[in-house]
Amino acid sequence: MSYKEISAKKRAERDTHLISEWLIPEDKLPKENDVLEFPVKSGYLSASEIEITESDAPTIFENIKSHKWSSYDVTKAFCHRSQIAHQLTNCLSEIFYAEGLQQAKALDEYYATTGKLKGRFHGVPISLKDNINVIGQASSIGYVDWCFKPEGGFTTDSAIAELLRKEGAVFYCKTNVPVAMMMPESTNHVYGTTTNPLNRLLSAGGSSGGAAAHAALKGSIIDIGSDIGGSIRIPASFNSLYALRPTSGRYPTYGTRSGLPGLESVNSVNGPLCTSLASMEWYLSNLVDADPSTVDPKVCYSPWKKVTLPEKLTFAILKDDGHVKPTPPIQRGIDMVQKLVEEAGHEVIEWDPSEHVALAQTITKFFLADGGKHVLEVTEATGEPLFPSMAMYGSAPSMSVSELWDLHAERSGNCKKLLQRWMDTQLRTKDGKVIDAILLPASPHPGCPHGKFGGWVGYTSVFNATDYSVGVMPVSRCDKAVDLAEKDYVPRNAIDKEIYESYDPEVSHGGSVSIQVACRKNEDEKVVELIKRLSKLVKYSG
Amino acid sequence: MSYKEISAKKRAERDTHLISEWLIPEDKLPKENDVLEFPVKSGYLSASEIEITESDAPTIFENIKSHKWSSYDVTKAFCHRSQIAHQLTNCLSEIFYAEGLQQAKALDEYYATTGKLKGRFHGVPISLKDNINVIGQASSIGYVDWCFKPEGGFTTDSAIAELLRKEGAVFYCKTNVPVAMMMPESTNHVYGTTTNPLNRLLSAGGSSGGAAAHAALKGSIIDIGSDIGGSIRIPASFNSLYALRPTSGRYPTYGTRSGLPGLESVNSVNGPLCTSLASMEWYLSNLVDADPSTVDPKVCYSPWKKVTLPEKLTFAILKDDGHVKPTPPIQRGIDMVQKLVEEAGHEVIEWDPSEHVALAQTITKFFLADGGKHVLEVTEATGEPLFPSMAMYGSAPSMSVSELWDLHAERSGNCKKLLQRWMDTQLRTKDGKVIDAILLPASPHPGCPHGKFGGWVGYTSVFNATDYSVGVMPVSRCDKAVDLAEKDYVPRNAIDKEIYESYDPEVSHGGSVSIQVACRKNEDEKVVELIKRLSKLVKYSG
Repeated sequence: MSYKEISAKKRAERDTHLISEWLIPEDKLPKENDVLEFPVKSGYLSASEIEITESDAPTIFENIKSHKWSSYDVTKAFCHRSQIAHQLTNCLSEIFYAEGLQQAKALDEYYATTGKLKGRFHGVPISLKDNINVIGQASSIGYVDWCFKPEGGFTTDSAIAELLRKEGAVFYCKTNVPVAMMMPESTNHVYGTTTNPLNRLLSAGGSSGGAAAHAALKGSIIDIGSDIGGSIRIPASFNSLYALRPTSGRYPTYGTRSGLPGLESVNSVNGPLCTSLASMEWYLSNLVDADPSTVDPKVCYSPWKKVTLPEKLTFAILKDDGHVKPTPPIQRGIDMVQKLVEEAGHEVIEWDPSEHVALAQTITKFFLADGGKHVLEVTEATGEPLFPSMAMYGSAPSMSVSELWDLHAERSGNCKKLLQRWMDTQLRTKDGKVIDAILLPASPHPGCPHGKFGGWVGYTSVFNATDYSVGVMPVSRCDKAVDLAEKDYVPRNAIDKEIYESYDPEVSHGGSVSIQVACRKNEDEKVVELIKRLSKLVKYSG
Repeated sequence: MSYKEISAKKRAERDTHLISEWLIPEDKLPKENDVLEFPVKSGYLSASEIEITESDAPTIFENIKSHKWSSYDVTKAFCHRSQIAHQLTNCLSEIFYAEGLQQAKALDEYYATTGKLKGRFHGVPISLKDNINVIGQASSIGYVDWCFKPEGGFTTDSAIAELLRKEGAVFYCKTNVPVAMMMPESTNHVYGTTTNPLNRLLSAGGSSGGAAAHAALKGSIIDIGSDIGGSIRIPASFNSLYALRPTSGRYPTYGTRSGLPGLESVNSVNGPLCTSLASMEWYLSNLVDADPSTVDPKVCYSPWKKVTLPEKLTFAILKDDGHVKPTPPIQRGIDMVQKLVEEAGHEVIEWDPSEHVALAQTITKFFLADGGKHVLEVTEATGEPLFPSMAMYGSAPSMSVSELWDLHAERSGNCKKLLQRWMDTQLRTKDGKVIDAILLPASPHPGCPHGKFGGWVGYTSVFNATDYSVGVMPVSRCDKAVDLAEKDYVPRNAIDKEIYESYDPEVSHGGSVSIQVACRKNEDEKVVELIKRLSKLVKYSG
């Protein structure tokens, strides 16, 4: 079979799992680009389904616990909304609503019989990124060759699914990704492109783009994504979501499928993408408290900590990393946040990004260090062509381990310099305090037009190099009346030029404006607390 | 200059830093092999020097704090004893007693003037392994070419020295290591061989062999070593010391010199070697509480935790990893511990080492993955020959990054299996509990005769692969009357044969019998608590 035939077969197979009674006829689907409100306003969901899917995770868990809702009803509501989200944005790779409903039923029966909850996630449906293996399902991660391998799906869960399942979570779908999860837009030859529900002319971002579109439409309360260069943060920032890239070694990643398996120079991490901060914190705290070190050999047990922030906060702000200038809506977003933060009495100093570009470029070298071998082995098996933005995987030279060691040493030197720069902020702040966080763009774009991301993930990937705890939060949406194209800007390089020229206020209207909140290593809790504080100032409501 | 001339110059330079008034004439040095008691019984140390150097770290710190002792007096006492230790075992690489005494004086003045202590280590002398850079000193790590590079010594401290210095620690010497720190015995062409103070016919072990001999003779209360395959635990086990190999990412390693710089497939960690458990815990807790994440970009801040053990403990015991059988004294030691533990009402089950050999062999592949390039670059610069046990660095093929990634994946698979095996012990224990720790040998030897280690560090290196928290504790000493050579043993392989044949009860008499206490990742505190409990059962007193 040709790669196109395999893909068509896989898509057809996926679509057999859609619930036919919920399918919206083509002519009833919206024509608008902004479909965020469609699930609630279109009338396809029942009042009860809307109530459930508009609730946050702790509320859902409590309502299951108190017998107000069954897990079955909750799961059914999310399956229904998930399917609508998929029809709107093509966000799903694997659909297994029937299995999810069966799991939910079994959990309800267990609770009814024993009077006990299965665990910390009892009955709560959670959506998984395609790279997380689930018993009985495939994990093609956008590769044609992996659509039906292993035949019949995996026979074991990835560690994170193993633990969540043990704790009673319900799985019902997996979300679309770019080929090998190595592009910042979610497109591949198997499922095609996931679109952005805020504005379907825009990309959902990647690699957790399916997760982000699905979460934004509330196809799930918690969509799990993964991030090795910005793959949680970029799509979260494109879809007005709260999200966290935790420091590695705390959340389980063992046994997930990777486009670059065995790469350890930079570690992929899992994290949630949510419309609700409360859902995000509920997930983050319960998962580490369930002790992922029992299922993942690389994890250190580190329960969720209570963090109390000082009244007065101290931030560094980065508006431009000197390599690629953010587009006008992103500039406005960061200026707005600075103003609000300063008005609230917090201190803001400038962040010097001297190490950012070098660290971001090193990350790219790590990705390509096997000479593209692991990617090519899979694409060449079916002859699927590489997308233009993955062309370098077809031409990268193979690196020796000796060269890799030298690159590690260079990276660590830059990480030390950046850390020193962070500690030295105490010499520049009014009260001699080290900054609490850096506020900066997540990407130059407010959601780029499809295929127009350009080659710069440096705003996010710098923190994969340092392995810092970094969150994303929405602050505004693009407004063509305000976010005018910049004139007379002289780009600094080809990527800067491409991104500068790709911005069109008409096309981007309604796109998401988000920022990153970057703390140091192992400060996951602090990031969450800071986003809570900042979100009260920003008052973003979609 | 030839490599021999450079080495001779370096040794001569080192020896100029000895304090001449303390030098023991050649004919007054002991002829015995066991010199452990020489420092106290020989009459060279004053009563006050003995009192100070026989104290543990918390006592010393408190006595400095209460003005009972000055840092100067404490430092002087340790410099004196350190010099005796060096004359007995050739344990030091860099000697800078004069600088240490100056630092101590400055700290005393600071305390007298301000009424404040400099920090958590105020005035306490700490001895450093040769790979830890200290301003003004070299870090040759056994390489001839690095004896005088950089000229005049380093201009910055390694992160751990930076933090300890900030907290008021005093540095006064560095300890000898094998070439590149990549042999399990401490010998090199610069300084020669460090001997074992329990029995100088035996090796001090390596790579922290200088640290171990120095600590055993109480040349320091705390000798910092490092461990990438057993380099803390092997020498600690050869010298009757308490020691910990912490899980990586907690104690600072940034900016230390490495024989394999940039290697990250397995991470070197720092840890203490001490005669006193109280000193060890004092060091470990104070160093993490001082927040090493401020100086090392790879460290996560993780303050020392209080751990309460259950009354009844559950152990797995490994007596033989199936590849190399421990020598008779080590067998006796582990049997003795099992008996004591069972008599005290704790549960003991057998540990299945199915993954140990594969993991240990993978670690060796990681060490050689650059084809020996980084080692050879330095040895070839002066023409110093490779020691036989490092011959593989001269012949290893270079590995591609693609092969390295596959090896990472294989290693992680074995780590997961071992973790699963650990968790599954709950199916085998009487009360359904997961084991608290594995008790096992640290090496097949009770201190090997010089040059006779043989090629097996698998008892320790398996836990570098898993990155577990592992401690070492002494339990007995070799007794030629009891630890008879095993007869009629049929070795399983060449290394097993070499080690079996190397054991001679006469030669090993008085050598150290120690065990490892292995917990899982991030359980440093638990290891310390377990060693406290076990040491009360074992009642080892030297």
